[in-house]
Amino acid sequence: MSQLTQIEPEWIIPVEPSGQVLTGHAVIIGEQRIVDVLDCETAKLRYPSATRLALPEHALIPGLINAHSQMGTTMLRGLSAKHTSPPAHLEQLTAQHLSESLVYDSALLACAEMLHGGITTCSDSYYFPEASARAALQCGMRLRLGVLVQATHSAYANDSQDYLARGMHLRDQLRDEPLLSFALALLAPQALSAASLAEIATYAHELDLPIQAVLHETPEVIQLSLDAHGERPWARLAAAGLCDPGLVTIHGVHLTEAEIFSMARCGASVVYCPSANLLLRRGDAPVATLHSAGVPIALGSDSAAFTQHLDLWQEMRLAALLNASTTPSLAAKRALESATLGGARALGQEANLGSIHAGKYADLVAVDLSDSGSTPCYDPIHQLIYGGGRERVRAVWVNGRQRLANGALIEIDELAIRARTKQWQHKVQPLRFNPNNSI
Amino acid sequence: MSQLTQIEPEWIIPVEPSGQVLTGHAVIIGEQRIVDVLDCETAKLRYPSATRLALPEHALIPGLINAHSQMGTTMLRGLSAKHTSPPAHLEQLTAQHLSESLVYDSALLACAEMLHGGITTCSDSYYFPEASARAALQCGMRLRLGVLVQATHSAYANDSQDYLARGMHLRDQLRDEPLLSFALALLAPQALSAASLAEIATYAHELDLPIQAVLHETPEVIQLSLDAHGERPWARLAAAGLCDPGLVTIHGVHLTEAEIFSMARCGASVVYCPSANLLLRRGDAPVATLHSAGVPIALGSDSAAFTQHLDLWQEMRLAALLNASTTPSLAAKRALESATLGGARALGQEANLGSIHAGKYADLVAVDLSDSGSTPCYDPIHQLIYGGGRERVRAVWVNGRQRLANGALIEIDELAIRARTKQWQHKVQPLRFNPNNSI
Repeated sequence: MSQLTQIEPEWIIPVEPSGQVLTGHAVIIGEQRIVDVLDCETAKLRYPSATRLALPEHALIPGLINAHSQMGTTMLRGLSAKHTSPPAHLEQLTAQHLSESLVYDSALLACAEMLHGGITTCSDSYYFPEASARAALQCGMRLRLGVLVQATHSAYANDSQDYLARGMHLRDQLRDEPLLSFALALLAPQALSAASLAEIATYAHELDLPIQAVLHETPEVIQLSLDAHGERPWARLAAAGLCDPGLVTIHGVHLTEAEIFSMARCGASVVYCPSANLLLRRGDAPVATLHSAGVPIALGSDSAAFTQHLDLWQEMRLAALLNASTTPSLAAKRALESATLGGARALGQEANLGSIHAGKYADLVAVDLSDSGSTPCYDPIHQLIYGGGRERVRAVWVNGRQRLANGALIEIDELAIRARTKQWQHKVQPLRFNPNNSI
Repeated sequence: MSQLTQIEPEWIIPVEPSGQVLTGHAVIIGEQRIVDVLDCETAKLRYPSATRLALPEHALIPGLINAHSQMGTTMLRGLSAKHTSPPAHLEQLTAQHLSESLVYDSALLACAEMLHGGITTCSDSYYFPEASARAALQCGMRLRLGVLVQATHSAYANDSQDYLARGMHLRDQLRDEPLLSFALALLAPQALSAASLAEIATYAHELDLPIQAVLHETPEVIQLSLDAHGERPWARLAAAGLCDPGLVTIHGVHLTEAEIFSMARCGASVVYCPSANLLLRRGDAPVATLHSAGVPIALGSDSAAFTQHLDLWQEMRLAALLNASTTPSLAAKRALESATLGGARALGQEANLGSIHAGKYADLVAVDLSDSGSTPCYDPIHQLIYGGGRERVRAVWVNGRQRLANGALIEIDELAIRARTKQWQHKVQPLRFNPNNSI
């Protein structure tokens, strides 16, 4: 039997059942998985040889799941948000700087940032997925890798055939990595022909690969689809046979009620990216309707080139504030669920991730609520969502392995990452700060 | 000549002119005030004996101004947000627990929280203002003390006469404190009779005291005023002769265009509290219209009993995100201005506070932007607003005196504050976390 660790936080927030807060309890973790959740007294008797880790004034929550990132763009932090068309500007920057080393260095930086902030899993889609996979494995982060499929040429691949071939080759190479899983990623389904969608559907079904697709993020992309194909993107995905419980739709800002009910019927989920929605002036997603229709909602940071950071605490807080008209308590619980269990559902990993229960992977986050800005703490869920921030994350475990202790990354050379970051900043820097000049 | 300090950050963001970012520059501070802002080379020649403080990868910004707090409620953190009528619930809690020691301990905790977060000035209004003043002076924070005037009895005072008398006595005692200034605070003008308003106007004019008044936060308070007095609160303040450049209106969520133009004409300002507006389901303030009408906009945290924390970084970020439809860059600049110069304008302290210029008080904040979540940094204003957080505040000066160094408070016994906080938590705790029970 492997060595067990007994974590004894002030509060355990298992997320399932919703709103539960356990005190006087311990979580026992073994190799990879949560072994038990039980009261501290019984734990001492049942697991006498476990290494005990007391975390007074800490809340223990499931690892956060960032259900939409583009790690490979992190070296372009914030550069696209201020342009009139952020996605077009990111494409320009990508055309200019894209290389495997940009993606690898960016993904390392992204993993460092995300682990500091309690994100233990991310679902990513960008060019050079092999570089993102290498970075995540090196950092010990869980990654759902969306293999990019698109029609347009890039420094990474030529056409949709080429994208698919490269992605499938990568999957064959890395399919036994326990922290990795694969999907097919469509960042602009309106730009894919019916033939490409059909081919993607064939691959998806034959290889049992789920799909993640950016969907209905603006009225403009819907109009592009109508102009080119006579149908809205959702209808085209449905016609191609892509709408099933494996389908993760990203953004879903502009959905009709009929589309939401169709989504609920087929079991697809939505990744809600509130910061990106506001910053990119898309409007807000119809969260209340999605909730009542029973569509699983996950949370995503989107690209740091748009949103400046990969911070699910900000996304949770914003999701709760924008939906506080239900009640602030319900909105807080839902925001926490979206960032954990909702993400697990979207990724088809509900049995393994998203809540603190025996048998699930030990992806855990300890948050220190002892500082002057967090006390007194009468309700840890409210405190985490409305008063929290990623700086309070003090310890992180992924797959039973500790990745952050006392706020410092373990076995990750953050200084080396920062040195590479400075080099990229120098290379990309599009702005000059002249003394006395405005920018 | 007193000892000078030469602060050399990576970036200086003076706030005036808007959007300016200085590199290679230094800020020279002396006793109380900023002596000079100039390039580092000239600074060395001109101030050879100054103590140099290099802050690589830090941005230096003006101290943040929290233009609406209720420090005395901080021990009730988050308790009222989840109730159907948060203000009514806070009144209940206040009736139950209000004492000078609650206000003093709460205000100490609030000052610790705010100084950690780069807030150097707050404009406060709550019972027992003497206790808040004592806490702020002890912590070396700048305080605009709104002396509460209301008709209803409390543990602090009996009727509006009594509130006024106590407030004026306090002002007489403390009028020579350099960090303190005074105002009259109306938290519910709709509940004040025309006679009370007239009396307040007399005091305000005779003693040259500005007014801060909660205004039009919900349709309900407007209706209460219409029912009781036949007029909306703004019209009543105007009729009482209270509308002048000293008037600070708090919230201003439900304003007609005519009211906004009337506000602009008389020079009154609005304190925008975006978290409170969303959490208390009030709707959002008409920020774009206020901007175009030229009404000065400040930012406020409101009470921690509602918003969970006193964090102007969250307020800046939310203000920018909710108004990003102008452009994200303009929204970021405006958010930073609201939290600094806008606050200074609202408090009539534009000549002394709110930007980094020679002659103004040395209220300064250094923010570390070197971490994995803040780099690369292509635009420090974007990074501060969209990617920032109070945890990155590493140094704070108020009135030329350093209050925070390397993230730790100076001469403030934070452990003692935390011990008192635990005592209050135990006393107030309205919830029981039973193992296995939901809350």
